[in-house]
Amino acid sequence: MLAAVKNALEVFQKREIDRVYFVACGGSSSLMYASKYVLDRESAKIDSDLYSSNEFIHRNPRKLDEKSLVILCSHYGKTPETVEAARFAREKGALTVSLTFDADAPLAHESEYVIVYEDGKGANYLNESPAIMLELVFGLLAAKEGNEKFNDVVSSLDNLGPILEKEKAKFLSRAKAFAESYKDDKVIYTMGSGANYGIAYWFAICLLMEMQWIHSHALHAGEYFHGPFEVLDKDVPVIQLLGLDETRPLEERSLEFTQRYGERVVVLDAKEFDLTGVADSVKGYIAPLILQAVLRQYAEKLAEARNHPLSTRRYMWKVPY
Amino acid sequence: MLAAVKNALEVFQKREIDRVYFVACGGSSSLMYASKYVLDRESAKIDSDLYSSNEFIHRNPRKLDEKSLVILCSHYGKTPETVEAARFAREKGALTVSLTFDADAPLAHESEYVIVYEDGKGANYLNESPAIMLELVFGLLAAKEGNEKFNDVVSSLDNLGPILEKEKAKFLSRAKAFAESYKDDKVIYTMGSGANYGIAYWFAICLLMEMQWIHSHALHAGEYFHGPFEVLDKDVPVIQLLGLDETRPLEERSLEFTQRYGERVVVLDAKEFDLTGVADSVKGYIAPLILQAVLRQYAEKLAEARNHPLSTRRYMWKVPY
Repeated sequence: MLAAVKNALEVFQKREIDRVYFVACGGSSSLMYASKYVLDRESAKIDSDLYSSNEFIHRNPRKLDEKSLVILCSHYGKTPETVEAARFAREKGALTVSLTFDADAPLAHESEYVIVYEDGKGANYLNESPAIMLELVFGLLAAKEGNEKFNDVVSSLDNLGPILEKEKAKFLSRAKAFAESYKDDKVIYTMGSGANYGIAYWFAICLLMEMQWIHSHALHAGEYFHGPFEVLDKDVPVIQLLGLDETRPLEERSLEFTQRYGERVVVLDAKEFDLTGVADSVKGYIAPLILQAVLRQYAEKLAEARNHPLSTRRYMWKVPY
Repeated sequence: MLAAVKNALEVFQKREIDRVYFVACGGSSSLMYASKYVLDRESAKIDSDLYSSNEFIHRNPRKLDEKSLVILCSHYGKTPETVEAARFAREKGALTVSLTFDADAPLAHESEYVIVYEDGKGANYLNESPAIMLELVFGLLAAKEGNEKFNDVVSSLDNLGPILEKEKAKFLSRAKAFAESYKDDKVIYTMGSGANYGIAYWFAICLLMEMQWIHSHALHAGEYFHGPFEVLDKDVPVIQLLGLDETRPLEERSLEFTQRYGERVVVLDAKEFDLTGVADSVKGYIAPLILQAVLRQYAEKLAEARNHPLSTRRYMWKVPY
């Protein structure tokens, strides 16, 4: 565990905290959906909310105060709304803990505590943001409520590296087949629930919309039956995530329906993963991390098949907005 | 105010309540986004969460207990997940208050308190679900925290009927023009933030996806710049809502960008509404009700232009799911 994470957990011990706000934008926000799922399921006392940074500032939650912990994230640490959110939260007296890749970025300067994470080639998965978020929320639960799953999370993360490599290799040929089959599609839906919904959201808005300019929408597997499913026909592509958390029955139900009336459903099922070394008590919380690593390959292969590199942008970082 | 609403507010006086769960599916859920916005902005103590009914049951929030108020809604009162959610919440000791159109429906039987609302032709707007939700959340805030805007909400709602009729009439020709212009589109986005996001969500999943089989996605005006905006080109249709709440700067920003790079943005701006009789203190909370009434006409005219009645379904209520 990074020293900065340990340091944050020590601060959690000392500070009174009755509420957590997860505040970020886009991909950085998507990884926090699972964090809120953890607090909802596990915490006896701590409330939590998740907001896009600018919504957080303008919504200005009245309960944001010196007993609030605000966890923020921005990869380059320059996202103006997230930097401003850190400043705003500190003015309210809240404890701010920020994750960023760049120790010298504005977000680091505006936050009380900073965790610099690794990313990209050669990164140690334990020091990447999804693992750190799990350590933070379970560390908070251990500090405040004696939650005993913290140790299970730490030991499971220790064993995660080889699992990620093995599962990525296992799914690589499927990622290639997906890319060939879906490279000409204009709309691709993703679907999930519970701890996995954030991964569906990330793939829809970052990988498909941002990086591939493909229309998308992260469907919630429960909401599906109350509107969205009427768009389904044989030609509509849906990427269905199946996790291991308590909402899996929702995902199984949406899959069954999509397979009954659709012909283009792509399934990523965490039950296929070899989770040796991951504690049973936290498998549902760890599965999204593996789903994300596996699913990323689907985008990489799609980008190759479409000759549209994932780095292509027309507006982001290029024009004022 | 309906006697059943008054009754619920009296119960709120007597019961200890530290948390509200808004629980419903699809369109019934969408009207609760504004309710959570109200509690976030106004409440000093009461936490709140909003979940699709089946997610609520399976997520099984640990803090759901006898101090929780669970507000549920199902139009026909038969949505199995919402009926089950009411049963589940009562087993946990929570106070359950359900909104439904049908007093004899299963949801009414499973809930401790029932509010039967009006709907459709001849309904008194004061007795429809959006107005009732405002009365409930501000009534709760008045009962528990002495919030003084409750009276403003009640008087503003009293004056809302003629406003709705006038604004619907004002926007009718624009709704017809929209329908002619967009009737052949396969994808139409909606966009909003804050108190209006639920209206964008409702239009995307219920009106466009469910009732018109048009691909859609309710974009959050803040998240837009962190992924989704990369799909924008001159041909991509976006319906932009502009409300009067504190997040309006987010909506103005997304509109400016979409108008700069797109050519097919449809604007519904609450600043155009004549809100005589609506108190300044609650205009931001009332605007979504008018936006919804006006926007519904856009779907009605679209349905006519496409010769695809809003009542058309291929799965809902027709096949098992």
